[in-house]
Amino acid sequence: MIKRIGLGTIAFDNMPAVEGCAAVVGKKESEGPLGALFDKVIYDSRDGAETFEAAESRSRMQHAAAQSAMEKAMLRAADVDCVFAGDLLNQCVGSSFGLMDFGIPYLGQYGACSTMAQTLLMGAVMVSSGAAAHALCVTSSHFCAAERQYRFPMEYGSVRTPTAQWTVTGAGACVLGSSGKAAKIRAATIGRINDYNITDANNMGAAMAPAAAETILRFFSDTKTAIGDYDAVFTGDLGQVGSDILRDLLLRQGVDVGDRHRDCGLMIFDRAAQDVHAGGSGCGCSASVLCSKILGDMAQGSLRNILFVATGALLSTTTAQQGKSIPGIAHLINFVAG
Amino acid sequence: MIKRIGLGTIAFDNMPAVEGCAAVVGKKESEGPLGALFDKVIYDSRDGAETFEAAESRSRMQHAAAQSAMEKAMLRAADVDCVFAGDLLNQCVGSSFGLMDFGIPYLGQYGACSTMAQTLLMGAVMVSSGAAAHALCVTSSHFCAAERQYRFPMEYGSVRTPTAQWTVTGAGACVLGSSGKAAKIRAATIGRINDYNITDANNMGAAMAPAAAETILRFFSDTKTAIGDYDAVFTGDLGQVGSDILRDLLLRQGVDVGDRHRDCGLMIFDRAAQDVHAGGSGCGCSASVLCSKILGDMAQGSLRNILFVATGALLSTTTAQQGKSIPGIAHLINFVAG
Repeated sequence: MIKRIGLGTIAFDNMPAVEGCAAVVGKKESEGPLGALFDKVIYDSRDGAETFEAAESRSRMQHAAAQSAMEKAMLRAADVDCVFAGDLLNQCVGSSFGLMDFGIPYLGQYGACSTMAQTLLMGAVMVSSGAAAHALCVTSSHFCAAERQYRFPMEYGSVRTPTAQWTVTGAGACVLGSSGKAAKIRAATIGRINDYNITDANNMGAAMAPAAAETILRFFSDTKTAIGDYDAVFTGDLGQVGSDILRDLLLRQGVDVGDRHRDCGLMIFDRAAQDVHAGGSGCGCSASVLCSKILGDMAQGSLRNILFVATGALLSTTTAQQGKSIPGIAHLINFVAG
Repeated sequence: MIKRIGLGTIAFDNMPAVEGCAAVVGKKESEGPLGALFDKVIYDSRDGAETFEAAESRSRMQHAAAQSAMEKAMLRAADVDCVFAGDLLNQCVGSSFGLMDFGIPYLGQYGACSTMAQTLLMGAVMVSSGAAAHALCVTSSHFCAAERQYRFPMEYGSVRTPTAQWTVTGAGACVLGSSGKAAKIRAATIGRINDYNITDANNMGAAMAPAAAETILRFFSDTKTAIGDYDAVFTGDLGQVGSDILRDLLLRQGVDVGDRHRDCGLMIFDRAAQDVHAGGSGCGCSASVLCSKILGDMAQGSLRNILFVATGALLSTTTAQQGKSIPGIAHLINFVAG
């Protein structure tokens, strides 16, 4: 059974385990500090497909990450009871087109860049409740597909502000079940939508940081734990601006995350060398960092009890053009050593 | 606990109950055959808000349906553990903006027009597993917002083909918990993505019918039941073209649905009088019909055991313009008398 231990916070008696995970990224990501840890790199933005969108989905990135995660779990697609997936493309077509060939019962998720944590949360509930023996959790983003959908055609070469983040070209996939040894999911907190009236679509970090702070504080309160109980808190993807705001917001509530806080958007790129301004972003950012570095460190034992807090900005180009603010959300997953 | 009884088919020992439901629709829908059954009607497409999108979401329709469903369940927003919601607008902003004021832990869903069944499926898993005491399930669509996003600016007054469907302006909301008497959820089947290479975005019924057939047949096979065991099968929203195809596809597999089949897209409008071509569509179509007519009939006892099969077309304007086919999906919920 699953225990409700607070508003939106749940704990798993029967902890779902990570049975396999994989990350696929683009060339720029492969040149960053985590480059050696990814399962596959696509060196060309189209990767032989006709469009950026096809490269993100069916023919390539998301499909490849899911395939690799299932192989590591020693499962065929027919063994997987359900897949939770989502992405940034309108109507989540990166996922529907990316995963349809597998024929796995499909539940599309939309949490913007918080999607990886959301899919893990749903997958964990399915596995822990007995509704699924194996659940696949997948997400992706693609710089070129996102850039032209949200901002300008690639050919314009748009100027970026200092607070802007760079959408990661990457996909992460995780199979949850009962038999993995790398890491298990002990608890989770479902995010609430926080709207701090940020209207600058080039400053997503500021829009998402309050949601991350609220979710982390709620989790500590509901579980009666504190920052000192965890080896690390990984947010994704606040970037430098959002990370600074998160630390401030938490400090005001008496929580000093100190060097226990890391942000996936800052881990994946070398900001000094890679011209990504405030850091990385996109569903694929926290997903690819989780499915390479973080779960890798858990499997090796250098991390034993962590919080993975993926953050999302729930705007669209329509709401931005209509002058609406950018609501943020953050879902939290507590992984413990397997 | 929840039992896996087939690939993607689950049965609830501890059946989640409908504690309250509500439907809000637009003027045209209020003039249709179900007009008297809706909880609230918005007579103007903007309903006093600045934009169609705002009318769909925060200020009005989706918010009002959720509020009314919670009131009928005698719950405040703070009593609800989580909300599953989605819509057709890019990045599901109808839901994120529509529900954020409630402060309920939020999990965005994307299943196109299958979203109502998907949210019910997820809500039922949360309640039955103990992860939530009360889960809110909401979706909406808005004719004007969808028309200008997917097709043309409203001002163009576009010509429609005979197979085209009319996007319903409507929202439906359902609170699931343990204490309702109207109806309970006994089982569910998660849809798989079916791609029959339909590329005509004005013929969604044809694109979705194969998915509905596959889900219904899989449910019958997994549960070892047959069409004769159910009072009715409600699909939403295949329209006339898709309904005819569904009947044919099922008949070829030896299943004669006969007059047990009804389609929400055909129930909500009077096709002869309301100029809606092949029928209604949109997330709000099956949602508003379920939360008025169908669950109303279950509460009154004229229906006791039904299948609700919401269907979705997983395309975007980008995939359509790139010449891609339209993949379909259908999720199934088995409601029984409470």
